[in-house]
Amino acid sequence: MILDKINSPKDLKTLSVEEMNILADEMREGILKRVNAIGGHVGPDLGIIETMIALHYVFNSPVDKFVFDVSHQCYPHKMITGRKEGFFNPEYYSKISGYSAPNESCHDHFTIGHTSTSVSLALGLAKARDLKKEDFNVIALIGDGSLSGGEALEGLNQASIFNGNFIIIVNDNEMSIAQNQGGLYKNLEQLRKTNGEYENNFFKTLGFDYCYLEEGNNIEKLIQTFKKVKDTKKPIIVHLHTLKGKGYKPAEAQKEKYHWQVPNFLDENQTFENIETYESITTDYILRKKEEGEPIVAITPATPGATGFYQEFREKLGENYVDVAISEEHGIGFISGLAKGGAKPVLAILSSFVQRTYDQLSQDLALNNSPATILVYWGAITGADCTHLGVFDIPLISNIPNIVYLAPTNKEEYLAMLDWSVNQKDYPVAIRVPYIPLKSTGKKDETNYSILNKYEITKKGEKVAILGLGNFYNLALETEKILNEKGINPTIINPKFITGVDKELLESLKKDHSIVITLEDGVLDGGFGEKISRYFANSTIKVLNFGAQKEFTDRISQEKLYEKYHLTPQLITEDVLNLLN
Amino acid sequence: MILDKINSPKDLKTLSVEEMNILADEMREGILKRVNAIGGHVGPDLGIIETMIALHYVFNSPVDKFVFDVSHQCYPHKMITGRKEGFFNPEYYSKISGYSAPNESCHDHFTIGHTSTSVSLALGLAKARDLKKEDFNVIALIGDGSLSGGEALEGLNQASIFNGNFIIIVNDNEMSIAQNQGGLYKNLEQLRKTNGEYENNFFKTLGFDYCYLEEGNNIEKLIQTFKKVKDTKKPIIVHLHTLKGKGYKPAEAQKEKYHWQVPNFLDENQTFENIETYESITTDYILRKKEEGEPIVAITPATPGATGFYQEFREKLGENYVDVAISEEHGIGFISGLAKGGAKPVLAILSSFVQRTYDQLSQDLALNNSPATILVYWGAITGADCTHLGVFDIPLISNIPNIVYLAPTNKEEYLAMLDWSVNQKDYPVAIRVPYIPLKSTGKKDETNYSILNKYEITKKGEKVAILGLGNFYNLALETEKILNEKGINPTIINPKFITGVDKELLESLKKDHSIVITLEDGVLDGGFGEKISRYFANSTIKVLNFGAQKEFTDRISQEKLYEKYHLTPQLITEDVLNLLN
Repeated sequence: MILDKINSPKDLKTLSVEEMNILADEMREGILKRVNAIGGHVGPDLGIIETMIALHYVFNSPVDKFVFDVSHQCYPHKMITGRKEGFFNPEYYSKISGYSAPNESCHDHFTIGHTSTSVSLALGLAKARDLKKEDFNVIALIGDGSLSGGEALEGLNQASIFNGNFIIIVNDNEMSIAQNQGGLYKNLEQLRKTNGEYENNFFKTLGFDYCYLEEGNNIEKLIQTFKKVKDTKKPIIVHLHTLKGKGYKPAEAQKEKYHWQVPNFLDENQTFENIETYESITTDYILRKKEEGEPIVAITPATPGATGFYQEFREKLGENYVDVAISEEHGIGFISGLAKGGAKPVLAILSSFVQRTYDQLSQDLALNNSPATILVYWGAITGADCTHLGVFDIPLISNIPNIVYLAPTNKEEYLAMLDWSVNQKDYPVAIRVPYIPLKSTGKKDETNYSILNKYEITKKGEKVAILGLGNFYNLALETEKILNEKGINPTIINPKFITGVDKELLESLKKDHSIVITLEDGVLDGGFGEKISRYFANSTIKVLNFGAQKEFTDRISQEKLYEKYHLTPQLITEDVLNLLN
Repeated sequence: MILDKINSPKDLKTLSVEEMNILADEMREGILKRVNAIGGHVGPDLGIIETMIALHYVFNSPVDKFVFDVSHQCYPHKMITGRKEGFFNPEYYSKISGYSAPNESCHDHFTIGHTSTSVSLALGLAKARDLKKEDFNVIALIGDGSLSGGEALEGLNQASIFNGNFIIIVNDNEMSIAQNQGGLYKNLEQLRKTNGEYENNFFKTLGFDYCYLEEGNNIEKLIQTFKKVKDTKKPIIVHLHTLKGKGYKPAEAQKEKYHWQVPNFLDENQTFENIETYESITTDYILRKKEEGEPIVAITPATPGATGFYQEFREKLGENYVDVAISEEHGIGFISGLAKGGAKPVLAILSSFVQRTYDQLSQDLALNNSPATILVYWGAITGADCTHLGVFDIPLISNIPNIVYLAPTNKEEYLAMLDWSVNQKDYPVAIRVPYIPLKSTGKKDETNYSILNKYEITKKGEKVAILGLGNFYNLALETEKILNEKGINPTIINPKFITGVDKELLESLKKDHSIVITLEDGVLDGGFGEKISRYFANSTIKVLNFGAQKEFTDRISQEKLYEKYHLTPQLITEDVLNLLN
């Protein structure tokens, strides 16, 4: 294999174009191998291989600096910069992250996993370089999909007037995670159709120099193009037309499906059970409402697949479905307007990405008390990459006034909360969609959620009370069993409401409890448990808060984190017994 | 006065153009009168009077809906829609808000005070209208300055492909709050120079229909223009060239200075004391560092005046100053890049606007541990408008891992923290600039802030310990006096670090204290005090947290809020005595 000889970018510089083409094929194999073993990004990486080879051939990394937007396209770069083991050697698969990671290599300059940040980060490097009178190229590599994000657009506005070397590679593979959305993409389409000659050019209106390469997977032409822009003294956009999924036919054909894949995706005989999930009951609910003639609108900021908003659902919804593109901020403003206009918006977003909308949650939505529904998925301690942790949404959302943030624990509760939220007109509501297998009680939940901050005592005991929030209600039940063995009969409480304290219920605990414990599937700092601690702080009740520490963990397994944070029935019981004695 | 007869938009529709011009002059007077009495926005409102008259003449509010970006230009609208008393009758000045406010009038559809939200909010209204098969015009009114904000750009991307009536008025007065920054503004300049004919048109690249009016303060032409676009079935940009500050010569000449003004600004003999402030010692420090040859960079997201980054300072800094425009998200990404590149960025931002950057603080900055400095101004319970509260920054920033958030209590501490932050390379640091008159101890602070989370006992007492954070350290001292009168000699603690708990110090309190109280100038939920409550929750120490409740208050005076939240020495003492007994 040619790749055997590539241990750093300099080993690449002696190859012929023919050898580089063979190398590209070898790297394709590495991508498929790795993803088939541990999951990861397929299409974007397959499409960018030639670009990365040519970039490393022409530029001099790490002196010249590449900044990867969202890192969906960093696998080929990793293979060239000494990390090929992460793609060919199973032992190393999980040691090499799927994202840009400075702790792995001096060729990575930032830890990146959220979109639309590359222009800003790279522009900072370029400005620092010029202040320090240093001399190298700074190159931001951004996909067409990421361009719609606010931070990227803000960055482009400033980058275009930057007075120095600054190169932005736009990797246009005609796709975001799903289809691109918005006027910008019609402009890119015109540029592609005219070989970059279309006169109304988005990038040029901002003042950028601009060049276009139609054959974005042609190494020779890529090298020619990059040689031309190397050492430019002005900001320039290099617009490449590439093929997402290139070299793996299914990924070329089904671009959305193969953007990211799960392990064993290469096994064509793999079948998926058609089981009921929180995703499926959500889309069923929305479709039913539409059929009933309600002005319900499902909104996603570019991640429909991640929340189960699949093609069939989107098509059935028709004009009642809007993908706002990677534009989370706009998405929240948009649903506030929809709600005020009398529609019933339901926006689905991942915990890690709802972070992109704090000010819109506060100003556009909460301050206006717009009755929109936000479904927060993947909110949990999961063992994810440090860029995709789902543990910060509770402090983020629950400390904003007016928003009602709910934590259901089973199917019926979830559907009752969703239905209440969609039908009420008084509050913005967020629901933390359970990140646990769907559990059904078989009994309709008749709770009136308009009575805010009403917790439920599901089992009355004494001495110890356990508040098991959302995902961790089960953990409360399991802990109960262990406590029973120790002769303690705890009270079990399902708080349901993250955003407020049920004073009456908490007050009632004082008479026959001495310890209250809180369990939350998220970071403790600024979270739910601290509110309970504050409530009891002036009393003799003792409180123990269980949850995640304030830290960015990086691919530490859920099991290890549970151990570390004492989130097992045994460890919780030990802590309770220690406090009792 | 013609305005006497205008009680709603319909009263305007019978006026001649000549009468409307007289009306415009009367409204100018109202703006100056009000702002001279209670402060407010001068330039943007003076420049938009003719536009608002023409809009209300042509369109049919509130059936047709206007959405005001950031509301810096809503005074004329308020005068036309039944709220002229707020401009001519001192009794009503503070009853009418300076921002778009649905609780005042059915002609206002959203409470708005942050920028770049109008397109998204209005697009939601338009989409809801079409789903419900209603029929009216939706008009977003956005200033050129607000266009650079990510949410606005995201919104434009989606709005341009919207299939229905949608009108965006771009009020181009050639200014943001200060100068506009970025390539977009060079494009607007070309459009102005060519009467809208310049072929590379930013808005057209997105797919918008577009029309331009050079005489944006000419009522007759405005009416003609609006009549043409009324009832359009497609999204259209109406680009108006207006004069910021029109009709008041000083405001026309000094556009930045008169963007917003303080009471009595019309008094030309008014003098300002040249006293030392936190703003002045900050700019002095930055200039000194530059003179010493440090690669220090001062960054502001479009609000240099609000943080004391005045013209003279900016000019002296030269290339070491960057205004990133209204682009807070990009601003944080940019300083992360600057810091990684070896420069020393210091970004100045208001508490209310740092909200716009949560994900960038988390992902671009904290996850990368980039040693940048963020100065957070106006973080306090102030009695501000509900859109500009400075009470949420502590929960926002302090629950993000890695960031060190500091709360200085006097000049020397502030300068020591600032200097430490600029020189260290380990952490992103935010400093909550005191929102109290500058106090000097006259003694250099020699603390080593690299030892994180080290609180200081400034006075050792017993039984009661008071943690007075930042602005509220003084309140701790005042409370001490009252407690002394009651025979209690409390321990006084200056925590300095908002982001962590000094376990050793807190532990040491257990031996001779029974009550710990925390004082913070911000919302309690998710804040500093709750961390102290959590720490002591499993002990016999009782804790009382004092701070703001989780709510959007609207122009409630600081005094009243202090009373409500028990933030006076007397009320705190009462609560302590109640708990002791």
